[in-house]
Amino acid sequence: MIFDEAYSGKVFIMSRKDYDSAEAVIYGMPMDYTVSFRPGSRFGPGRIREASIGLEEYSPYMDKHLEEVNYFDAGDILFPFGNAEKSLGLIEGYVDKLLNDGKFPLGLGGEHLVTWPVIKAMAKKYPDLALIHIDAHADLREEYEGEVLSHSTPVRKVCGLIGANNVYSFGIRSGMREEFAFAKESGMVLEKFDVAEPLQKYLPKLAGRPVYVTIDIDVLDPAFAPGTGTAEAGGITSKELLQAIQLIAESELNVVGADIVEVAPAYDPTEQTSIAASKFVREILLGWV
Amino acid sequence: MIFDEAYSGKVFIMSRKDYDSAEAVIYGMPMDYTVSFRPGSRFGPGRIREASIGLEEYSPYMDKHLEEVNYFDAGDILFPFGNAEKSLGLIEGYVDKLLNDGKFPLGLGGEHLVTWPVIKAMAKKYPDLALIHIDAHADLREEYEGEVLSHSTPVRKVCGLIGANNVYSFGIRSGMREEFAFAKESGMVLEKFDVAEPLQKYLPKLAGRPVYVTIDIDVLDPAFAPGTGTAEAGGITSKELLQAIQLIAESELNVVGADIVEVAPAYDPTEQTSIAASKFVREILLGWV
Amino acid sequence: MIFDEAYSGKVFIMSRKDYDSAEAVIYGMPMDYTVSFRPGSRFGPGRIREASIGLEEYSPYMDKHLEEVNYFDAGDILFPFGNAEKSLGLIEGYVDKLLNDGKFPLGLGGEHLVTWPVIKAMAKKYPDLALIHIDAHADLREEYEGEVLSHSTPVRKVCGLIGANNVYSFGIRSGMREEFAFAKESGMVLEKFDVAEPLQKYLPKLAGRPVYVTIDIDVLDPAFAPGTGTAEAGGITSKELLQAIQLIAESELNVVGADIVEVAPAYDPTEQTSIAASKFVREILLGWV
Amino acid sequence: MIFDEAYSGKVFIMSRKDYDSAEAVIYGMPMDYTVSFRPGSRFGPGRIREASIGLEEYSPYMDKHLEEVNYFDAGDILFPFGNAEKSLGLIEGYVDKLLNDGKFPLGLGGEHLVTWPVIKAMAKKYPDLALIHIDAHADLREEYEGEVLSHSTPVRKVCGLIGANNVYSFGIRSGMREEFAFAKESGMVLEKFDVAEPLQKYLPKLAGRPVYVTIDIDVLDPAFAPGTGTAEAGGITSKELLQAIQLIAESELNVVGADIVEVAPAYDPTEQTSIAASKFVREILLGWV
Amino acid sequence: MIFDEAYSGKVFIMSRKDYDSAEAVIYGMPMDYTVSFRPGSRFGPGRIREASIGLEEYSPYMDKHLEEVNYFDAGDILFPFGNAEKSLGLIEGYVDKLLNDGKFPLGLGGEHLVTWPVIKAMAKKYPDLALIHIDAHADLREEYEGEVLSHSTPVRKVCGLIGANNVYSFGIRSGMREEFAFAKESGMVLEKFDVAEPLQKYLPKLAGRPVYVTIDIDVLDPAFAPGTGTAEAGGITSKELLQAIQLIAESELNVVGADIVEVAPAYDPTEQTSIAASKFVREILLGWV
Amino acid sequence: MIFDEAYSGKVFIMSRKDYDSAEAVIYGMPMDYTVSFRPGSRFGPGRIREASIGLEEYSPYMDKHLEEVNYFDAGDILFPFGNAEKSLGLIEGYVDKLLNDGKFPLGLGGEHLVTWPVIKAMAKKYPDLALIHIDAHADLREEYEGEVLSHSTPVRKVCGLIGANNVYSFGIRSGMREEFAFAKESGMVLEKFDVAEPLQKYLPKLAGRPVYVTIDIDVLDPAFAPGTGTAEAGGITSKELLQAIQLIAESELNVVGADIVEVAPAYDPTEQTSIAASKFVREILLGWV
Repeated sequence: MIFDEAYSGKVFIMSRKDYDSAEAVIYGMPMDYTVSFRPGSRFGPGRIREASIGLEEYSPYMDKHLEEVNYFDAGDILFPFGNAEKSLGLIEGYVDKLLNDGKFPLGLGGEHLVTWPVIKAMAKKYPDLALIHIDAHADLREEYEGEVLSHSTPVRKVCGLIGANNVYSFGIRSGMREEFAFAKESGMVLEKFDVAEPLQKYLPKLAGRPVYVTIDIDVLDPAFAPGTGTAEAGGITSKELLQAIQLIAESELNVVGADIVEVAPAYDPTEQTSIAASKFVREILLGWV
Repeated sequence: MIFDEAYSGKVFIMSRKDYDSAEAVIYGMPMDYTVSFRPGSRFGPGRIREASIGLEEYSPYMDKHLEEVNYFDAGDILFPFGNAEKSLGLIEGYVDKLLNDGKFPLGLGGEHLVTWPVIKAMAKKYPDLALIHIDAHADLREEYEGEVLSHSTPVRKVCGLIGANNVYSFGIRSGMREEFAFAKESGMVLEKFDVAEPLQKYLPKLAGRPVYVTIDIDVLDPAFAPGTGTAEAGGITSKELLQAIQLIAESELNVVGADIVEVAPAYDPTEQTSIAASKFVREILLGWV
Repeated sequence: MIFDEAYSGKVFIMSRKDYDSAEAVIYGMPMDYTVSFRPGSRFGPGRIREASIGLEEYSPYMDKHLEEVNYFDAGDILFPFGNAEKSLGLIEGYVDKLLNDGKFPLGLGGEHLVTWPVIKAMAKKYPDLALIHIDAHADLREEYEGEVLSHSTPVRKVCGLIGANNVYSFGIRSGMREEFAFAKESGMVLEKFDVAEPLQKYLPKLAGRPVYVTIDIDVLDPAFAPGTGTAEAGGITSKELLQAIQLIAESELNVVGADIVEVAPAYDPTEQTSIAASKFVREILLGWV
Repeated sequence: MIFDEAYSGKVFIMSRKDYDSAEAVIYGMPMDYTVSFRPGSRFGPGRIREASIGLEEYSPYMDKHLEEVNYFDAGDILFPFGNAEKSLGLIEGYVDKLLNDGKFPLGLGGEHLVTWPVIKAMAKKYPDLALIHIDAHADLREEYEGEVLSHSTPVRKVCGLIGANNVYSFGIRSGMREEFAFAKESGMVLEKFDVAEPLQKYLPKLAGRPVYVTIDIDVLDPAFAPGTGTAEAGGITSKELLQAIQLIAESELNVVGADIVEVAPAYDPTEQTSIAASKFVREILLGWV
Repeated sequence: MIFDEAYSGKVFIMSRKDYDSAEAVIYGMPMDYTVSFRPGSRFGPGRIREASIGLEEYSPYMDKHLEEVNYFDAGDILFPFGNAEKSLGLIEGYVDKLLNDGKFPLGLGGEHLVTWPVIKAMAKKYPDLALIHIDAHADLREEYEGEVLSHSTPVRKVCGLIGANNVYSFGIRSGMREEFAFAKESGMVLEKFDVAEPLQKYLPKLAGRPVYVTIDIDVLDPAFAPGTGTAEAGGITSKELLQAIQLIAESELNVVGADIVEVAPAYDPTEQTSIAASKFVREILLGWV
Repeated sequence: MIFDEAYSGKVFIMSRKDYDSAEAVIYGMPMDYTVSFRPGSRFGPGRIREASIGLEEYSPYMDKHLEEVNYFDAGDILFPFGNAEKSLGLIEGYVDKLLNDGKFPLGLGGEHLVTWPVIKAMAKKYPDLALIHIDAHADLREEYEGEVLSHSTPVRKVCGLIGANNVYSFGIRSGMREEFAFAKESGMVLEKFDVAEPLQKYLPKLAGRPVYVTIDIDVLDPAFAPGTGTAEAGGITSKELLQAIQLIAESELNVVGADIVEVAPAYDPTEQTSIAASKFVREILLGWV
């Protein structure tokens, strides 16, 4: 074989060629129109794939090889640029299809608002869904500059849909006073600053539950992920996020879907953000699917 | 005086402190949500101001000094991110106000769609308005991926509003076949590839007419303006654009407003795009106001 | 309100428009002519303001909102480039004025030498002033390549002025043998490598004392602040610096002024250094003023 | 259709999904081990594809649309890194296959040495092959630091294979004295500095001949293509190269294959080199296939 | 003295001018042709020298000054680009000479394969040589895409030469399953993820032994060393690597040579990777020679 | 020979090892403290040397090889940072020495103020010296923000020293009104915008005269030289500057010294500015010495 599309960065490394037999499906959501600071996460999915060329297929963290998980990289959803509402509809429809086909959806953002339609689809299939939300930002706003569809609102919307008490946020170090107040009153879990340690407390409680995990790459300190729209100093290390992924993998959770969002390559000429994100994707494939 | 806000890059160099007495008003339109390729022009206005620190206040092209033109830099309009429709409404309202107050509006983009509401306001005040459009792209689409409000549609919309025969496009080197066909059939002027030379042909015809001039920085070859969303090889030089600005300044046109759009600083670590754009703003202030 | 200059990056976010009623004044000192390695910190103040657009106005660290502190961003001092002596005179004069007007001076560098004239002004008003100095470099040289006015000498000069026993340096990991020797003999405090932990030891001792705090951004590891002139591997994390700011906020110190210096944006295309520095400025406003 | 792999940058824009019916085949040769200055052209093919997302499918130069040409993007050849000999063997074998299948080979480099095995395959099929070579460098060395397989030698090797009198070099502005001497003595055509004008002289002479065209992106001035290994000041503009492509398209030449080489994206954070190269690929597809 | 070549970045800071009297010799190995992901480490040695200008000559870690160690910077070996085999021969020959002359060889890479010929030379002189290998990657492959001379194979080759039980790898977080299996079976030491702590366990065991230490800069997290070919998230901090260097310095090991490899400056516009590496070189000079 | 310091970028390519026999001496003046916009030209000389590795030693423009000119690269002068006056004294002293030793001084800046002491030295030796000044900026200010020693004043000072009628400026496109007025009244030659064409007019007049040529890299459009402090849109191409160098080479001028200044690498991650400058240095060596 002289060609291998995975080694051209066309798809995530070792992606199989067949949708039907795949357990998991990687799909990109290149949308970034509602971000308030630095746009550009639409190029995140493509660069995460490209960076996967540099990965080993075996993980010494999970002691597992990508050939042990059957997955298919479907490419990016084609969006009408600037129309958030229609774009979110496309996402929800696609994830509906994935779930009907029995796939594990593994989404690549794009801005964090893309998680909202995914959860809408997930909640239809899993009425007792819980959300693990790993992020620097609370994303609990009701609106942003008058907009309900904003990258600052998805978690608040999820609270309305599946119940705040089923939402667990970790690593949060930025938000409005009202967001932190809402977190307290609503009964959701919001753990500030750290991820791995507080996560350990809650994992037993979630045992057996269907859980969706959304990771905003900006939970990492900008030192580890400068290529993101709303970089926020004071974050966790890549080591801690790898540890969190492993804790979830070793837990009794029934992870039913996941995403990694907000990789914006234009702000990171070193490419380290895409490189790190592609490693997290590998670990998710090996540990959660 | 130990402080000078112009020398801090807070406003365009030599901006006066008083709106009321100003002839011209510089205002930023930091919107970029409908672009189809690389977003980021929302940071254009701020970086053009910052780069103006490096400019001389005197122009050897115009043999004129900025103290001879009274202008006020109003800052950027505050937009609801991701909502194109509301943002365009804010722009139209603001330009209405500027025109009522007798100001020359000098807008800094942002994506090219911002020119559409500006022209709507201009056409109310100047019913016989003509448009000079300097750009790499025809921007004559009726819609883009189903969206009517897109950075690819503003000139088409202007044709509908003021009549295609009042629209003069220069430097165009990219578009759909349908756009070039429309240009031919509609009676507008569309000159491919070059700007200064074809401009000379049409300036006499426009003598005495109220004319709005919109400059998309991507009319320059990416060599001269890499910091833009949809860079297109094969463009003109900065020298040619300076010459075009001077030709208009020396013509009998009644320039009643202007803008420079699509400066996206994130793609240009050399900062040359902002530096060039700030020089064009100076020349416009000296030559057209 | 369709314009908001803070959201244009013209001033630090939420800066009030009135000098007279302000408790604190932010001012830029864009000077960098005596640095020995990579110049460019003259652009630090402007980019810290620009990056503040991405900040929340509320801090979950301090549980406080910027509306609770009344401050005014005065812009940058206008310097005669290349003349260190005159520039330092302008700084001292301006801080004299701020102190006479009862303001808390919050300076943005520029190179570290700018702290020297600030301390001269502070010491006139507060004869029992102490200095907390957070930095990678000892800055205790008597001269550098024959120059007494150098970015390597300010702390030595302060020792001469207010007494070495009133100077507390933290995080130091670079200097000449003579500087470390001077630190030992002179009776000043010099703690190597770490900041937060040793700081805790000394804060009680300084309770009630008027203290000026100067933070050189290069105390952070270059991973967290690559945009600085003399990056020095082996530094602290952003988390530790945030913790140090909070420790001081919660102490009994009477902080009477502060600065953050040596942000040099040209060496950091990711902008993370300015982004981090703008967060530290917010925390200082909320915690120390 | 909610997915379109061309719009994900996975393949060149509008690539068809079927090899068998395609007239032309785009293939990448990500090899860069023998370059003497800045390596990195192995990432050229992938980034040219990614940049093609920003292209229009219609060309106003050719007045033609990509739907009028049936082509297939095969991806990149998988090379044994560091082994030039084996890599060149893989290329020759693949182009043999393309020619057997009646395809027009359109290669994306990679370093310029990749053209050597391509020509070996071409010459087997077309014994009277001529080469048009557009480049800043003569590439006429017999060896480089003792290496016969070097990015400085391919044109010399081609001279040996098909006869120097069948080799036409344009735009050359760098080489050893011996290379220019060889050019003179050998009977090949070597035109210095310019491309479009001298090309016009020779095109009639080549009418009807099977011709392979190789374009080294560094024929452009570094202003227009900074992302290349051996940038050489004093080159031509993108406009001139577009004109040259058009001249060949309008000539009576029988172009039987082509390549664009030496795009090294790491040296160009503006991405303008990949953007320009993707436009040249479009023009070649429309004009030469 | 108005010139000082060390202060021009021509040689590593404070390099002496005389080879004969030097204890240690710094030499560059600018080879990067076998890397599988991002090439460019050939520019590592030059930029490490340039960055050394920003260093102090005194180390507060070692409490020692560079004037206490006599070393000579010989420059870079001149390689035939693209020919790995000949290049490795040149390295082995040069290190043979250094050892015959009684020098401590301190090599600057270049890709990691350069360590292989160095060890071949070292093992001839020190038959009981042990290797300390600090790296993100196991480098234990037998071949890579069919190539035995690859940047993924050097440690495996060393195991064959000096015995796996004399090889100690630290910080490893990437490799094939087969590499980790080989590590276990072969009797070598392979400690995952961390460096300083596991190192402490093994240092006593190596007391008195002649030891060569090879440091791949990618053992650092990409946050601390983005400028490297195969960046791998989840690494150690610069602080930990400085601590490891110090632990070895304070141990009873007989360090007989060392190298730092894989600094690839093109991927790090912040220059922090070269800056960090130059500090590690200083510490090695002060602590190990 | 396995080492060649020129191929390590330690000195300009093919620099001889012996000062005494050299006809020309290359020396760096890494000073940038008086620039008003973007500092960093202190790193210009080093990067020009590094970039020379990518040059051919033969020039097809001059049809000459570097082995035909005997020159020595002396390195950079060691300056007291921030002290312009002392630094200028060091330069004058060094050029005095070079002229006494019969050398052709070829200086690398650094900011343009460095040319002032060079001319002071030149004028002592050549009382009838003329200056050819190729630049975007007039540099004719009497002072800048109160400073007489500024990067904006050197040509004015030269006019005072050798007589304005002996000063010929080309390419000027920026300055204060007063500077252009001075140029007119003083009798100097100041040609705006272009270089090669106006130069041709004046060369015959200068035949036989001892002439010093100073080239500010910013005469090039920022497209061709983004890495400079005060980039100014609308400049000439690299081709035109190469042509100007050749015109002087072919003239009857007695060129007695030259410099290239204002290369500031930090603003140009593409490195094209250093690459172009190193080519101009080669052409000067071949054509003027």
